[in-house]
Amino acid sequence: MDHPKFVIEASEAESMAKSSGLTLKQLLPSLVKSAQTLARTPISNFNVGAVGVGPSGRIYFGVNLEFPGLPLHHTVHGEQFLVTNLFINGETHLDYLAVSAAPCGHCRQFLQEIRGAPDIRILITSDENPDFTPLPKFLSHRFGPHDLLPHDTPLLLEQRHNGLSFSGETHNPSPTGFVCINNGYHPNEKLKFAALEAANKSHAPYSGSPSGIALIDSDGKIYKGSYMESAAYNPSIGPVQAALVAYVAGGGGDYEKIVGAVLVEKEAAVVRQELTAKLLLQSISSQ
Amino acid sequence: MDHPKFVIEASEAESMAKSSGLTLKQLLPSLVKSAQTLARTPISNFNVGAVGVGPSGRIYFGVNLEFPGLPLHHTVHGEQFLVTNLFINGETHLDYLAVSAAPCGHCRQFLQEIRGAPDIRILITSDENPDFTPLPKFLSHRFGPHDLLPHDTPLLLEQRHNGLSFSGETHNPSPTGFVCINNGYHPNEKLKFAALEAANKSHAPYSGSPSGIALIDSDGKIYKGSYMESAAYNPSIGPVQAALVAYVAGGGGDYEKIVGAVLVEKEAAVVRQELTAKLLLQSISSQ
Repeated sequence: MDHPKFVIEASEAESMAKSSGLTLKQLLPSLVKSAQTLARTPISNFNVGAVGVGPSGRIYFGVNLEFPGLPLHHTVHGEQFLVTNLFINGETHLDYLAVSAAPCGHCRQFLQEIRGAPDIRILITSDENPDFTPLPKFLSHRFGPHDLLPHDTPLLLEQRHNGLSFSGETHNPSPTGFVCINNGYHPNEKLKFAALEAANKSHAPYSGSPSGIALIDSDGKIYKGSYMESAAYNPSIGPVQAALVAYVAGGGGDYEKIVGAVLVEKEAAVVRQELTAKLLLQSISSQ
Repeated sequence: MDHPKFVIEASEAESMAKSSGLTLKQLLPSLVKSAQTLARTPISNFNVGAVGVGPSGRIYFGVNLEFPGLPLHHTVHGEQFLVTNLFINGETHLDYLAVSAAPCGHCRQFLQEIRGAPDIRILITSDENPDFTPLPKFLSHRFGPHDLLPHDTPLLLEQRHNGLSFSGETHNPSPTGFVCINNGYHPNEKLKFAALEAANKSHAPYSGSPSGIALIDSDGKIYKGSYMESAAYNPSIGPVQAALVAYVAGGGGDYEKIVGAVLVEKEAAVVRQELTAKLLLQSISSQ
């Protein structure tokens, strides 16, 4: 692979730590600066790098993504990118996180979607005396999933299947439409089923409106994004944002290489992504 | 006035407190339940009431607003409504805030835009032993305006004039267009200049992309909304959201009474509201 890596396999991470005489968690801060260089920040030029490790021992990178020409709520924060990266790779928890700047409240809130959030330990590399500190020290008296959901509801990084299908007979979902951002592109079956798979993995317990998107680039490579809700609503990550994390982390290069997209969501959902997904995809493809 | 009041004048607040044998800050929690009844929550049915007082002695109400059919980032939280209410009424600080549930991280972040944010004291009425607690206890190690702006930049509740005009000769701004959500409506000069005034008051120090909107209802009443940015980007309040706070707080009734709107923003701005503003206005006018 000649593109930047956003995941370091457990064995490689372990040998990197060993060769530096560090533990795995001590290794994280040393990787933050290289993560920062991968951020895409045409608005702020304020690059955030977030590096975390989960129970698997794999190390994950997160960076912030900004989208000019639209409102700022489309922005993906470094910590959100990291969590999406965990989601994509089936990691069930975040144990340690090193980040280049104090996480904003929006991100501290989004982290609450992970079961056992109070056990996440965060280190800010720009601190005078950086040290891993439990999340509750950053967001005490938290509002989160425990305030709204039954205890056994799957949380963000836990497996689920939303029961959506294209037949629509038994489960009552169907795709709302096909968002083709290149006029010449006709979505194929593979892209449609990739979007369906993403929608079935979507974390939307608060609105009951799961959705997923699949992007295809000019090389025919597919990138999936599952919509991920926050108990606090606004910090939710849209399906396009999630797919763009997969695109960036998967070495997708410039956004203009994205030639097609399919969105799957329920027809009568209370939260609808279609028009906003089109807006964002059209905006990034024209820049 | 026969519509619900979202501002209680200082003299009235003082006499309410006196007649209950309470101080002004002790009065706030007792008003939270009545604030909750004014929330518009068709998605969550989770009504939030926020009641605050500023240096003027006036009491302000805030409630959450939800918009079905769109992504959740359009949601206005109770605390954000309250801050927008302070902005509309020229209040320069929030001293005490009583709220029905623990503020989410997104709101704790948005409150950072107020100068002297660490002095804001918050009481959560659903707590076992409710007590006013300084904001830093809820969001320690904060990220905020102080990380990005020179100290003398006006913060959210402080006066500014963004120098926008319709002539466009000296300051290079001009309206991007007229968002008419009712085909029969033609924006008049009064509405255009109301939108310009809102854009000139807009708090957009991070992107340099101020914007403002003016709505008009079927009675000819005008409601202004200024775009308000957050240092953390995503918690920013869009111009339509701000105008809808003015509409709800001003007794505007059902959204379908809104018959026209004008948006003013810079033509080549890095943050553009036009298409998103249209999306939200069209969505609420069709429900």
